[in-house]
Amino acid sequence: MLHAVIMAGGSGTRFWPASRRNRPKQLLDLVSTAPLLRLTFERLEELVPPDRVWVVTTEATAGACRRLLPEVPGSNILAEPVGRNTAACVGLAAHAVRNVDEDATCLVLPADHLIGDEVRFRSAMAAGARMVERAGGLLTFGIQPTRPETGYGYLESGEEETQDDGWTIHHLQRFVEKPNEESARRYLAGGRHLWNAGIFAWRAGDVLREIELQLPELASGLQRIGDALRGDDGDKVLAEVYPTLPATSVDFGIMEGARHCWVVPVDFAWSDVGSWPAVAEELPNDDHGNAGRGRVAALDAAGNVLVSGGPVVAAVGVRDLVVVATPDAVLVVPKDQAQRVKEVVDRLRELGWEDVL
Amino acid sequence: MLHAVIMAGGSGTRFWPASRRNRPKQLLDLVSTAPLLRLTFERLEELVPPDRVWVVTTEATAGACRRLLPEVPGSNILAEPVGRNTAACVGLAAHAVRNVDEDATCLVLPADHLIGDEVRFRSAMAAGARMVERAGGLLTFGIQPTRPETGYGYLESGEEETQDDGWTIHHLQRFVEKPNEESARRYLAGGRHLWNAGIFAWRAGDVLREIELQLPELASGLQRIGDALRGDDGDKVLAEVYPTLPATSVDFGIMEGARHCWVVPVDFAWSDVGSWPAVAEELPNDDHGNAGRGRVAALDAAGNVLVSGGPVVAAVGVRDLVVVATPDAVLVVPKDQAQRVKEVVDRLRELGWEDVL
Repeated sequence: MLHAVIMAGGSGTRFWPASRRNRPKQLLDLVSTAPLLRLTFERLEELVPPDRVWVVTTEATAGACRRLLPEVPGSNILAEPVGRNTAACVGLAAHAVRNVDEDATCLVLPADHLIGDEVRFRSAMAAGARMVERAGGLLTFGIQPTRPETGYGYLESGEEETQDDGWTIHHLQRFVEKPNEESARRYLAGGRHLWNAGIFAWRAGDVLREIELQLPELASGLQRIGDALRGDDGDKVLAEVYPTLPATSVDFGIMEGARHCWVVPVDFAWSDVGSWPAVAEELPNDDHGNAGRGRVAALDAAGNVLVSGGPVVAAVGVRDLVVVATPDAVLVVPKDQAQRVKEVVDRLRELGWEDVL
Repeated sequence: MLHAVIMAGGSGTRFWPASRRNRPKQLLDLVSTAPLLRLTFERLEELVPPDRVWVVTTEATAGACRRLLPEVPGSNILAEPVGRNTAACVGLAAHAVRNVDEDATCLVLPADHLIGDEVRFRSAMAAGARMVERAGGLLTFGIQPTRPETGYGYLESGEEETQDDGWTIHHLQRFVEKPNEESARRYLAGGRHLWNAGIFAWRAGDVLREIELQLPELASGLQRIGDALRGDDGDKVLAEVYPTLPATSVDFGIMEGARHCWVVPVDFAWSDVGSWPAVAEELPNDDHGNAGRGRVAALDAAGNVLVSGGPVVAAVGVRDLVVVATPDAVLVVPKDQAQRVKEVVDRLRELGWEDVL
């Protein structure tokens, strides 16, 4: 049967002060009235029933995930004792899923992305799932680029294998690291490169077999945890073994060396909502290009991103700034330097202001 | 005996969001750990005992003034039912003071200014008070200009009359409205023009006599209130009569037409703390000219004014901005547009966000 594994282990600092240690991006309602994790869950609802939805998250946020997804059985929310990158994460989930469904097929998705056309999204997911049920192998979905983006990794598609419901399924040629501007332009023109969105489909058994072949140390640790999860000492073994697992990514640790890999090019609107300016693109704009959320007022101001998690924010006579306000912390940064939020967090830690991190 | 009348009726919006309807500038600790009103009171302590200090304020803030100045008898805190400009304010105070001290001399001072050298300040105040005790008339203190400021009114000094404790007392020639740049430069070079700081000295009887001569309608209203304040229905008559008084300023309603007016040029550092940039001049600055108050952090930022009334404020990569944050409201405005705060307040009122005004 089809299961969905939502990867919700991120603890990024890019959305400080909206995000905090115990309130990472996937738990924030950055662009809607619902947090991104909830949107991801709801997007899947017509495809996968709640008792076959799994969430891999951190111990700090497992409680919040359970409260946010009351439809999902509590035992489907898996808490990593520490983050060990995505290969360990998907392996843990594959064991947990296979423990209840020997022949499970998994869709694996980040918790914190936005999708434009949800009907087409579900159609693509279903086609990908059917492919791996039928043919085995590991499948990834690649987003058709709309600009020469240098901030994402790319997937290079190979020969066409088959079609399903209007989707073309290709062999996956290779993974490409974040390119320079020139390469990004070439990729956009060439039509064979896709943005790597980190969305996968595979049978649980297939991904575990690939881990066993390529990452035997990871496989044996995961096997111990998987066995323990069936009994009473799952939490204990997880806490002991998980921190010792080798940390590598799905892309480079598993997919690159796997025997059969597929890629499905998809063209629905997609955003990884990677920064405040990316959030702004999803928000209503006024006549002067000010994107706003919450009680914000722009006077003779243009091109700003004004986000409030409570306080009234008034911006007068300013241009192209990001202003984010919460009751206990405020950020002001030019839009084109929004990626520097991490420096802010480091500085506040140096200053000892841990209470707002 | 010498009394001090502190005018604390201001309800300005220039310091929003730090200032609010019920928490005007004089109640804010903008530059020190104490509110400006408290600093004004303490500055006078060696000159005037607390039971001879009087405060004229608004009904909304009378309670806060009493709490802030517990040494001052509650009956010395006079609450105007509505603001009727400064002539009515000083007349009300003169009646209240004369009711307890027939021959009282009054120093009259704004509650919300800063003074550099307090010893010289008290010396000047004492000299001014001795002058009006000896010679009568209405006396004002004029600040020696240090720049061609166009934001203040000026006092033009006339012939020298006498000296006292190193201070020279002149006849007051005339009041000058806020000048243009060219005139301001001429005033600075000429040496006879002084900034009008709104600090006065007079015998209570003398200022009331001048009001009677020049503003008979104001005088008769004030007389009714003064008489009532001696009995039990002071509050009632104040509430009835005060709103009907003509509204005019001390300068143009009383001083300009008075028979004897004096001015004492003073050279201690003085600020009316009229805007956020003026506040910044009183705050510690970092190596990049960022003035800060509260938990604020500037990264690769220069020339900013960062003021927090609670939240952590992080400013990254920005220049010459004013950022003021409170738990429920945040202002961002370029330093050279800081005077536009009033527009913000008007806009927020239009938006119906009265809770933060």
